[in-house]
Amino acid sequence: MIYLDNSATTKPYPEVLHTYKEVSEKIWGNPSSLHNLGTQATRILEACRKQIAELLGKLPEEIFFTSGGTEGDNWVIKGVAFEKQAFGKHLIVSAIEHPAVKESALWLRELGFEVDLAPVTKEGFVDVEALKSLIRSDTILVSVMAVNNEIGAIQPIQAISELLADKPTISFHVDAVQAVGKVANEAYLTDRVDFATFSSHKFHGVRGVGFIYKKTGKKISPLLTGGGQENELRSTTENVAGIAATAKALRMTLEQAELVQARQAKLKNVLVDALKSYPDITLFSGHENFTNNIITFGLKNVRGEVVVHAFESHDIYLSTTSACSSKAGHAAGTLLAMKVPSKIATTAVRVSLGDDTDMSQMEQFLTILKQIYQQTEKIRK
Amino acid sequence: MIYLDNSATTKPYPEVLHTYKEVSEKIWGNPSSLHNLGTQATRILEACRKQIAELLGKLPEEIFFTSGGTEGDNWVIKGVAFEKQAFGKHLIVSAIEHPAVKESALWLRELGFEVDLAPVTKEGFVDVEALKSLIRSDTILVSVMAVNNEIGAIQPIQAISELLADKPTISFHVDAVQAVGKVANEAYLTDRVDFATFSSHKFHGVRGVGFIYKKTGKKISPLLTGGGQENELRSTTENVAGIAATAKALRMTLEQAELVQARQAKLKNVLVDALKSYPDITLFSGHENFTNNIITFGLKNVRGEVVVHAFESHDIYLSTTSACSSKAGHAAGTLLAMKVPSKIATTAVRVSLGDDTDMSQMEQFLTILKQIYQQTEKIRK
Repeated sequence: MIYLDNSATTKPYPEVLHTYKEVSEKIWGNPSSLHNLGTQATRILEACRKQIAELLGKLPEEIFFTSGGTEGDNWVIKGVAFEKQAFGKHLIVSAIEHPAVKESALWLRELGFEVDLAPVTKEGFVDVEALKSLIRSDTILVSVMAVNNEIGAIQPIQAISELLADKPTISFHVDAVQAVGKVANEAYLTDRVDFATFSSHKFHGVRGVGFIYKKTGKKISPLLTGGGQENELRSTTENVAGIAATAKALRMTLEQAELVQARQAKLKNVLVDALKSYPDITLFSGHENFTNNIITFGLKNVRGEVVVHAFESHDIYLSTTSACSSKAGHAAGTLLAMKVPSKIATTAVRVSLGDDTDMSQMEQFLTILKQIYQQTEKIRK
Repeated sequence: MIYLDNSATTKPYPEVLHTYKEVSEKIWGNPSSLHNLGTQATRILEACRKQIAELLGKLPEEIFFTSGGTEGDNWVIKGVAFEKQAFGKHLIVSAIEHPAVKESALWLRELGFEVDLAPVTKEGFVDVEALKSLIRSDTILVSVMAVNNEIGAIQPIQAISELLADKPTISFHVDAVQAVGKVANEAYLTDRVDFATFSSHKFHGVRGVGFIYKKTGKKISPLLTGGGQENELRSTTENVAGIAATAKALRMTLEQAELVQARQAKLKNVLVDALKSYPDITLFSGHENFTNNIITFGLKNVRGEVVVHAFESHDIYLSTTSACSSKAGHAAGTLLAMKVPSKIATTAVRVSLGDDTDMSQMEQFLTILKQIYQQTEKIRK
C-alpha cells in the first residue's frame, strides 16, 4: 500500500498507541477526583500541557485541550464572537478556510453577526491588501489558516500580523491543523496571533484529541460549559490517555520535522517535474511559499474521483481535495476561491506525502500515473 | 486498592483497550476519504452505530457520536434552544442536573432565554407536580437526568413522559450518563424521550467519546459545524477506534448488568445496614427508586474531604459528591436542592460501586469506616 492521503489523516505512531494504552491502563483516574488517583491523572495531564507548550514556545496556561481541530475552530470562532459581541459583531475569515472555520462563521450570521470572506490571489494566498480593506471599527476577529489543506499554500501570517499590529481589539486566529511539522512554529505562531487550533490525528497522534493555543489575557467564552475543567473554559472529564498520546506525537513529529521536510522537498521536486512533463496536467500547487507535503493537480477533463479510484486499484491512496468535501462531491473550495473554473477544479486530486513516503513509492506512483494518463487519452481530447 | 469512585470514572475493560488498539492500528483511515481505507473506516463506524442502537432498542440513524457526556449535554441544551428559539425561549431543567446541563442552560440566559429549575423532593426526586406548574406556552425543552450522580436517585422519567405526552412541541432530554447498566434501558428511554446523553468512560469505555440519542424527526442545531459528518449534525473526523471501543464497552456492560446489579444490591444492603448502626452518620441515598451502585452519607461535623483522605490513606478511593464539583470544594448541589442544610451537605461522601466490587472489599471498607468513626469521635461531639 502507498498512502498519499496524509492530509486527511495519518497513521498513529506505534509509540503513540503504546502511550495511550499505558496511560489508559495505569492512570485512568478522573483528574477532578480529590484522591491520589485523581492527583496522578492531573500530574500527567499538566506534564503533557507543559511539554506541548514548550514544543511550541508557549506557556502551559496557554494550552487548552479539545476533541480535535473542528472543536478548536468552532470554539475560537464562536467563543470569541460571543465574548466580544458587545464590542462589535463583524468577523473576517479567509475564503479558503476549512469548513470548521467557515461554517462556524456563517452560522453566526443567523445570530446577527456579519461575516466577510477575505479573497485569495490566483495562486491561493490570502490577499492582505484586500483583507485590510475589509477591516471595520466593529471587526472583532480575523481568522486565516497557516497552511491550506487543499493545495499546501503557506498563508501570509507574518504580513497579517503586521497589518493587525496596531489593532489590538481584533482577535487573530490561525487554524494550524495542517502546519505542524510542515513549517516552522514561529512562522504561524507569531507574537500577534491570539488563538491557534491543532489536531492530533494530523500528526500521527490519536483521533478525537486536539488543543488550542490562547494567548495569555485573551478572552473567549466556553463552547462546552459544565464541570469547569481547563481553567473553567472547556468542561469535560479530561482524556488523559489521548492527551499523553498527543504530546508524544507532537514531540516525535517536531523532532524529525527538518529531516522529513528535506526528504519531502526532493519527492515534491520529482513529482512536480514529472507532472509538468504532461501537457494535459494542470498543477494547482506552486513552489514558493508552499509546503513540501501537498501537491494538487488535475488531468484535463478527468474528474478527480476517477483518478482517485484508478490509483486505488493499484493500492495507492490519494484524494480529491479535502476529505471533508470529497464525499459531498464538491469541487475544492480553495480552487474556486482562486477563480479556477469549476470544470477544471473538479479534476483536482491531492497527493499528501507522509513522514515515511520514500522515493521508491514515488516512482511507483509515477509509473501508475503514466498508465492512467495513457488510459484517459480519449477523455482528455 | 479498593476503588469506590466508579461514578467519577471507570477503569476501561482490557477488551475495550484491545479493540481501541486494533482499530487504531488497522482501520485508521478517514471515513470521509473516497478510497477504500475510508470505506473500511465507514463500515466499522456504521457497524458500531448499529450495535449501540440495537443495544438500546433504537435506530442507527438516531445515534450521533460526541466527545463525551459534557458535549452531549451542551449540544442538546444549546442545539435545541438555537433550533427552536423562534417558537419560544423558555427551558426547564431540574435543580439537580449535572453542571453540563445546568451551566449550559444558564449560559443561554445571556442570549435572552429564560430558564426555570424544577425543584426536587427532600428525598432527591424531581417533583413532577412542581415541574408541571413551570410549563408555559413558550417552553421548548425539559431536561431531567435519568439517575442522579450524587445520590443515585432514579428520576421519574416515566411520570414526566406522561406529563409531556400531550405537549409534543416540548423537547424532552434525559441525561443518561449515570444510568447505563444501572437501570433498565426502557426505564429512561421511554417513547416520549426525544434526546438522551451517554458517556463511554462511565461504563468502562474510553475517555473522550460519547453519543446522543436523537429521536427520528426531532430537530437540533449542530454545536460543531464544519465538514458535515454525523449526517451534517456533528462535524469532526470520526474517532473510529474510540467509537468501536465504546460499542464494545456498552455491549459488555449491558450483558452483565443484571448480574452486577444483583451483586451490588447485596453490597448496598450490607453497607446501608452498617451505616445505620452509627448514630452520627446521615444517609443521603434512599432505598426505593435508588440505584444499587451509589451510596452517599456523611459523618456528623466531619467534612467530606477529611473522610475521603482518611480512606485514601488505606488505599480506598471514594469521593465527596461529584468529581466535577469536588475540587471546587462545593457542597453537593443535589443535597442543597434537597434542602439539606449546608453544614450537613458538606459532610457528604459518595461510595460508588464498580462491576468488580466484592464483599471482601466491602468488609475492608467497613473495617476502615469503623476506625475513622472512632478517630473522629471528638469532632462529632
